[in-house]
Amino acid sequence: MKKVPEATIRRLFYYYRCLKNDHSESPKYICSDTLGNKTGIKSTLLRRDLSFFGHMGHKGKGYQRDELENKLKNIMGIDQQHEIALIGAGNIGKALVKYKKFRELGLYITEIFDNDLDKIGRRVGGYIVKNVKYLKESLEKNNIKIVILAIDEEESDEIITQLQEIDIKAIWNLSSAQLDLDQNVIIIKEDLCCSLGSLICKMNN
Amino acid sequence: MKKVPEATIRRLFYYYRCLKNDHSESPKYICSDTLGNKTGIKSTLLRRDLSFFGHMGHKGKGYQRDELENKLKNIMGIDQQHEIALIGAGNIGKALVKYKKFRELGLYITEIFDNDLDKIGRRVGGYIVKNVKYLKESLEKNNIKIVILAIDEEESDEIITQLQEIDIKAIWNLSSAQLDLDQNVIIIKEDLCCSLGSLICKMNN
Repeated sequence: MKKVPEATIRRLFYYYRCLKNDHSESPKYICSDTLGNKTGIKSTLLRRDLSFFGHMGHKGKGYQRDELENKLKNIMGIDQQHEIALIGAGNIGKALVKYKKFRELGLYITEIFDNDLDKIGRRVGGYIVKNVKYLKESLEKNNIKIVILAIDEEESDEIITQLQEIDIKAIWNLSSAQLDLDQNVIIIKEDLCCSLGSLICKMNN
Repeated sequence: MKKVPEATIRRLFYYYRCLKNDHSESPKYICSDTLGNKTGIKSTLLRRDLSFFGHMGHKGKGYQRDELENKLKNIMGIDQQHEIALIGAGNIGKALVKYKKFRELGLYITEIFDNDLDKIGRRVGGYIVKNVKYLKESLEKNNIKIVILAIDEEESDEIITQLQEIDIKAIWNLSSAQLDLDQNVIIIKEDLCCSLGSLICKMNN
């Protein structure tokens, strides 16, 4: 398979969500124009996105809705549930634990860690915030391979050192910390400041 | 000026933040290798990013720190403060109001709206949540041109209709709602589900 662009991967979620939430219409098939319109994505781009994963359409009919939904689910890896550990029980972290759209994708934050004694022991969204010193032990015990990092930069060094010692597959990095980890760990950096800031920058230019 | 890629704009914030937070070192100049190392960005890419905005370096010396910091601030439009309205006082919205890193960039959420009667009238980060029916009136009165949209999709129709009637310059759309607005309105879509989801997708493939 050709390398799939990051932007294509992101758009798969729009297609999937649209099919999943679209209970109102009954036709078994949907054409790329209709799905494109509903998602605000050009049908040519949509067809190119889906073509990365083999032939999905049926000639003259379009995409079979259930089939496409299930294929997308499978491609995106959300045909199974994933348990995720959150490091950082600040405002953003707490909001993510309660974010019901993650759960709709089968993504569950089931472990929460912090190094702030005021936060440790408190309950967030049904889970007790644990001391980050038990991170390795807890992740290994519960076989959790995905981590959300929502810490402040100031407190990152000790935590990054710990992360280097754990067998993790993927990190969603919402902090501004730079991660120097094994190359096999998949990291997506999600910097809210850069995102809102780039809006201001575009407005300014 | 050539069209600046979205990714370049985002990286400007890394360069800026690095210079701003780097109080430890005194040399007046910084070379692209050093700044690249500190931000985790290749120096060739860094130089290309900065070259979009004219010659910034000093031959044989590198970039003059204060000069570069100020230029970046100016390019990014954060050499002045910006007032922002938030629509949606749910968990994510509340976390954003309290997100101190926005304030460090001069971005202040000063108006908060919701259509949920349980939230209207409550205080979030020092501001009273207003009824979204006063959106147009409040934004015009306070001359606010930037909006953060952090609503649930289900409640989006009425709010989008309202947004169409207001003179807004830019929207940071954290909702999954599709916005059909005037083409001059700059919109950046920030979909947390797509972002975390694409991590899972990459891990899966």
